Amino acid sequence: MALKNDLLLRAAKGEKTERIPVWLMRQAGRILPEYRAVRNSLSGFIELVSTPDLAAEVTIQPVDILGVDAAIIFSDILVIPEAMGLPYEMIEKKGPHFPKTIGSQAEIDKIKVADIESDLGYVLEAIKITKKELNERVPLIGFAGAPFTIFCYMVEGSGSKTFSKARKMLYQKPEMAHQLMQKITDSTIAYLKAQIKAGADIVQVFDSWAGILPSPQYETFSVAYLKQIANAIQEVPLTLFAKGAYFARKSIAELDCQTVGLDWNMDIKESRALCGNKTLQGNLDPCALYASDKEIMEQTKHMLDQFGFERHIANLGHGVYPDIKPEKVKVFIETVKEYSSR
Amino acid sequence: MALKNDLLLRAAKGEKTERIPVWLMRQAGRILPEYRAVRNSLSGFIELVSTPDLAAEVTIQPVDILGVDAAIIFSDILVIPEAMGLPYEMIEKKGPHFPKTIGSQAEIDKIKVADIESDLGYVLEAIKITKKELNERVPLIGFAGAPFTIFCYMVEGSGSKTFSKARKMLYQKPEMAHQLMQKITDSTIAYLKAQIKAGADIVQVFDSWAGILPSPQYETFSVAYLKQIANAIQEVPLTLFAKGAYFARKSIAELDCQTVGLDWNMDIKESRALCGNKTLQGNLDPCALYASDKEIMEQTKHMLDQFGFERHIANLGHGVYPDIKPEKVKVFIETVKEYSSR
Repeated sequence: MALKNDLLLRAAKGEKTERIPVWLMRQAGRILPEYRAVRNSLSGFIELVSTPDLAAEVTIQPVDILGVDAAIIFSDILVIPEAMGLPYEMIEKKGPHFPKTIGSQAEIDKIKVADIESDLGYVLEAIKITKKELNERVPLIGFAGAPFTIFCYMVEGSGSKTFSKARKMLYQKPEMAHQLMQKITDSTIAYLKAQIKAGADIVQVFDSWAGILPSPQYETFSVAYLKQIANAIQEVPLTLFAKGAYFARKSIAELDCQTVGLDWNMDIKESRALCGNKTLQGNLDPCALYASDKEIMEQTKHMLDQFGFERHIANLGHGVYPDIKPEKVKVFIETVKEYSSR
Repeated sequence: MALKNDLLLRAAKGEKTERIPVWLMRQAGRILPEYRAVRNSLSGFIELVSTPDLAAEVTIQPVDILGVDAAIIFSDILVIPEAMGLPYEMIEKKGPHFPKTIGSQAEIDKIKVADIESDLGYVLEAIKITKKELNERVPLIGFAGAPFTIFCYMVEGSGSKTFSKARKMLYQKPEMAHQLMQKITDSTIAYLKAQIKAGADIVQVFDSWAGILPSPQYETFSVAYLKQIANAIQEVPLTLFAKGAYFARKSIAELDCQTVGLDWNMDIKESRALCGNKTLQGNLDPCALYASDKEIMEQTKHMLDQFGFERHIANLGHGVYPDIKPEKVKVFIETVKEYSSR
């Protein structure tokens, strides 16, 4: 059976579409009261991530409620370190925390490449349920964290303004860092392939902490591993989003991916020039959704004009912020749909 | 009496110098055991900031111990909101916190333009003591936060990954935001002028959160106020450092300042092209000081080569991190001094 709405997939492949597709990073969760109702019935975020039928339910909510052109499986990039032997906790209002971290050769040796079927079967199951429930209405996006970002969490143990503990390893023990990155990369490729096999129609890799590295280190410690992923994933379109790495747009666009994500600082025309004929995804300022409806419409139209109505997947430049009102998200989505219809 | 070492001032003015001057952001404090000895004798950071003879003592420590080419007065950018009627607390390992924040027109109306002599006399006193104790060995740097960064703290109330509360005001109440920024700007200009009158030989404005705004908003809400400051400060050289605002380097360099600060992501040659004939300050990755002595030397030499041994003040691309060993800082400083000597 074919997808009824395949705008996102066609845009990712660079095909002309009758209008620009739109979805939001973090659309599943956070902002919807319907999500919070499900979430509050459980012990916490991780229970929701690991309960396939509920993960599927919140994955589909924004398709029904907001009218987005894709669903993205409700999960977390940190399921990969967990599957590699480093469990995480999610602390309310603070974010992720790892009780154990990686600092020594012995600790790296102990870390395993994830066994996807046995360790992450619950994500694959959530994807299967979601695909069935979506009933081919819109594509389903699978995702993973970029090896560098996962490395940051595994070494630092939590979010950080500087990630100086993780970055210290790049300077002091670069070979050790490469060993860990390779294990993460092998796990990530297997994970993305399993998500595709379970039903994901397109996959995205999030390099959330890309912006903290100097450009030469970013090439060595992140782009090299993104390249392995891009070469390995040939089954479906691949989106790479390296937040903050304005200096690496050209390198990333040269990889074998279909779409490059832009954050809200990245100039659209400059990014077009740097990214060749790749499809671009983004990049409205997430804070623009605090504005009046009129201003959201204006900013969204201005963004669409700059992208030029082709090779573009409309999105914010970052995950939607938790206190944004769903009605404001709808104004953004409706404006994309109406203004880009030709 | 003339300064014995005026390398920094001459470099800032674009003059050729016999070698490149070097200092570190956050050199006063954090990394030195001699600093921690002073700090631990007091109730907290704010007591140290507001005790002139001790602030002067820790200001001079890095000149004696590390051999830097300038002292920077030990203080905090948040003394300005405090002087405007919004006191802050410094929470160990967490950072600054404001018990009251600014959200309404009434709150903005209540905020006053700082009366420098009466509210910040302790900083001026610290500068006078420092100048006397330095005895013209090296120049003394005065500083303030950029109006946008101070605005972020006054509205958000603390550090934040997104500053979405502060940024909400830019979208919802832009006129109110401008009113607050103007009061901050007026306070900052008066503050910098008072620091200069008390003895500061050069002043720097830190826009620490510059990188979170889309480029058009950065022009409206930050560059416009930096311009007022640059136009007002004509007595001594002025350095503007907008961390993360790679997209604004050209705009900032067009202001009436002498030196533009670069963070460690900013490509040196690209920055030279964008910044005309301004002196540039920076920009070694602060994490490079975790590396071996040999690699610190190599990275420092590479940086110096790229800057081309003129119109350059050597520094890190961010404040030195608290767990960096003083010996590593010395390797950086000595390498700059030796390798750039001609």
